[in-house]
Amino acid sequence: MPAKNVLYAQSGGVTATINASACGVIETARRNRARIGHVYAARNGILGALDEDLVDTSFEPATAIRALMHTPGGIFGSCRYDLPPLPQGLAHFQRLAAVFRAHDIGYFFYNGGNGSAETAHQIATILPHLGQPVISIAIPKTIDNDIVGSDFSPGFGSVAKYVATSLREAMADLASMANSSTKVFVMEVMGRYTGWIAAACGMALPAGEDGPLLLLVPEVPFNRRQFIAAVRSRVERHGWCAVAVAEGICLRDGRRLTQAGGDGIPGHEQLGGVAPLIAAMLRKALGVKVHWSVLDYVQRAARHLASKTDVEQAYAAGRSAVEYALQGHSDVMPVFRRNGGLPCRWQIAPASLTRIMNREKRLPRSFLTADGYRLTAPARRYFAPLIRGEAWPPFSDGLPVHARLRLQPLRRHLQSGWQTPAKTKI
Amino acid sequence: MPAKNVLYAQSGGVTATINASACGVIETARRNRARIGHVYAARNGILGALDEDLVDTSFEPATAIRALMHTPGGIFGSCRYDLPPLPQGLAHFQRLAAVFRAHDIGYFFYNGGNGSAETAHQIATILPHLGQPVISIAIPKTIDNDIVGSDFSPGFGSVAKYVATSLREAMADLASMANSSTKVFVMEVMGRYTGWIAAACGMALPAGEDGPLLLLVPEVPFNRRQFIAAVRSRVERHGWCAVAVAEGICLRDGRRLTQAGGDGIPGHEQLGGVAPLIAAMLRKALGVKVHWSVLDYVQRAARHLASKTDVEQAYAAGRSAVEYALQGHSDVMPVFRRNGGLPCRWQIAPASLTRIMNREKRLPRSFLTADGYRLTAPARRYFAPLIRGEAWPPFSDGLPVHARLRLQPLRRHLQSGWQTPAKTKI
Repeated sequence: MPAKNVLYAQSGGVTATINASACGVIETARRNRARIGHVYAARNGILGALDEDLVDTSFEPATAIRALMHTPGGIFGSCRYDLPPLPQGLAHFQRLAAVFRAHDIGYFFYNGGNGSAETAHQIATILPHLGQPVISIAIPKTIDNDIVGSDFSPGFGSVAKYVATSLREAMADLASMANSSTKVFVMEVMGRYTGWIAAACGMALPAGEDGPLLLLVPEVPFNRRQFIAAVRSRVERHGWCAVAVAEGICLRDGRRLTQAGGDGIPGHEQLGGVAPLIAAMLRKALGVKVHWSVLDYVQRAARHLASKTDVEQAYAAGRSAVEYALQGHSDVMPVFRRNGGLPCRWQIAPASLTRIMNREKRLPRSFLTADGYRLTAPARRYFAPLIRGEAWPPFSDGLPVHARLRLQPLRRHLQSGWQTPAKTKI
Repeated sequence: MPAKNVLYAQSGGVTATINASACGVIETARRNRARIGHVYAARNGILGALDEDLVDTSFEPATAIRALMHTPGGIFGSCRYDLPPLPQGLAHFQRLAAVFRAHDIGYFFYNGGNGSAETAHQIATILPHLGQPVISIAIPKTIDNDIVGSDFSPGFGSVAKYVATSLREAMADLASMANSSTKVFVMEVMGRYTGWIAAACGMALPAGEDGPLLLLVPEVPFNRRQFIAAVRSRVERHGWCAVAVAEGICLRDGRRLTQAGGDGIPGHEQLGGVAPLIAAMLRKALGVKVHWSVLDYVQRAARHLASKTDVEQAYAAGRSAVEYALQGHSDVMPVFRRNGGLPCRWQIAPASLTRIMNREKRLPRSFLTADGYRLTAPARRYFAPLIRGEAWPPFSDGLPVHARLRLQPLRRHLQSGWQTPAKTKI
């Protein structure tokens, strides 16, 4: 019996290091040619699998696959799409079974977060009932660091390093200007439901330094009066104050600040961006010049400043997924466990997807001081190992070089096409 | 006669490499101890000189001065403040003459942009009439790249490299998501009056590649209808489109887009940020998901991704200023000239401040295609050498290490204090 093929796909918001996991999958599969056939990749996540829009990575030279280690974004395309559950999703699973059968897929690796873990679980458990047994494994990836059962998530260490570095640099700028110009700088980072990234901004201050930096996370209700007083006291004492804010911070009633409007100007919520709201609030309350920044995609794509630790972990997640598959594991995700301490000592273990999917790990309250604005020592011990080490990409003519793949389309075998449902997550 | 002392000060918006110029001044002065006494620095630019708020850099070890090469912000503090012209500014110049006399200042180096060049010129030409002759030299520094008479400005190459890199990375992210999610990404960069930084974003596309990236600069009036059509055609053809926009883009009538409101929602102009306006416009017109980013201080502080060429040029600007002073030049700025070609071959020459100050070099129209949205080949030839080379700072525990100076205050000699005028530029 010839070796079964692999189907790999990327899902959800991409990261600076998701392609390192792709590299881990492909290189490990190539090292096991006796037991694994081709590595195919779906274009645009599970949507490409449904559409039979696949590429054959066998045509990529080893150097191109290696270049994935320093290439941000999702090289095969990602998607925001959940498979509908049974019974209404039956046609989807029948279609996937047909595609898998047509291309002799024995292993499915889905590289994503909590939601994608459910997709991997559905495929692991439903396709065997449709006559198409498959080993299905979720590979963890999320800048949000919210995967339950894993000490941390590949993708997070790099964004944490980037935002802490950027804020440390911007604070040096702000401190220079504060005497006669800008006194407050507000930096907005990602995090709709969790404050992991905003909290990591606290690493911008060296350990033991009580500098003028306030953190705002979704886990701590935003109190306008207290916050303004806290900024005022920093400006009075230090001459300036920096604020790192997660996009999803909420009022005590649970409404997001961007929905609530902040300063009551209608329409602001459409624009998105909590930093300009906070800035307008402080400008009005304190009468000082305020600058603000919204990093958005720039932060999660910043492969030029990836954490070496994170790159290694992302690769290891992909490699472990293939190794688990060869050991017969299915319906699992390789998750990370570690001891405290530096350098980061971590190990990977398979965890059942039903214990992971569609759950969310929030920032522990113990990571912030009682006022909610500053990091505690346990938080620093948690973040420190994850941001360690640099993994500079190669540069050419002053700019980073990214992988260029051939992305050779796989010949379609199925007669009928598949209409991608219009409904996608926004 | 003992050697005269130096007074160095930093002015205007700071950059990732202004401290490299400070390093150039201090190291060059230390190599000329026979002819130059102490190097003093004013806190917060000319305001510190007026306040007699000075530090003595002699107490800083050579390693700390060297660390300025990789430290963003302005280590001595900057200011946004113009000296009032004569006759009403007479008291200011008398005060400066008294401070310079008290500390035996024979050389004044003012590190800033077009406005700061006027301050240096005033000091060079007025203080001699007040019995305090001084050699006064402006050292160029501005991310805006708008200094007249200089082929480029220290500080610009680094911000250009950073924004082009960040956009290249974010485009990789966007391309991954576009199939089922975000189709447009708008990145706002600095540039109130000139489009140098926004144009440099065009380097995100490799040469010869006609990718879906549109540039919006203040020099080209914004045409809403044409712009929306341009984005629509890119999204239809490529599946996605990226936009780099300078904060100061204007309508044909000269009003800034942020003042005009963009989509007519009152109050938006207070928030600043043209990217959210553009994003809201595109979301409404095209009905697609749009992400946006405002980099603000993060871009000009990003020393972690400085251009090696820029760091060298910033150092050379500081070194040349001291050399010119020793040659007896005053009322000048070291400006840069170069031949085309790679690697960048440049030389420095003294230029008279009256030909530089308060003027502004705008982006040549020839740098953009007829539609105003894309870079031309001459533009690429201009930008390419400036962003070349990496100059990674040292990292410790995953974060960049910045210089820590003692900033030893100089004992005040003057009896009377100086009330800093409240009026500062915003």
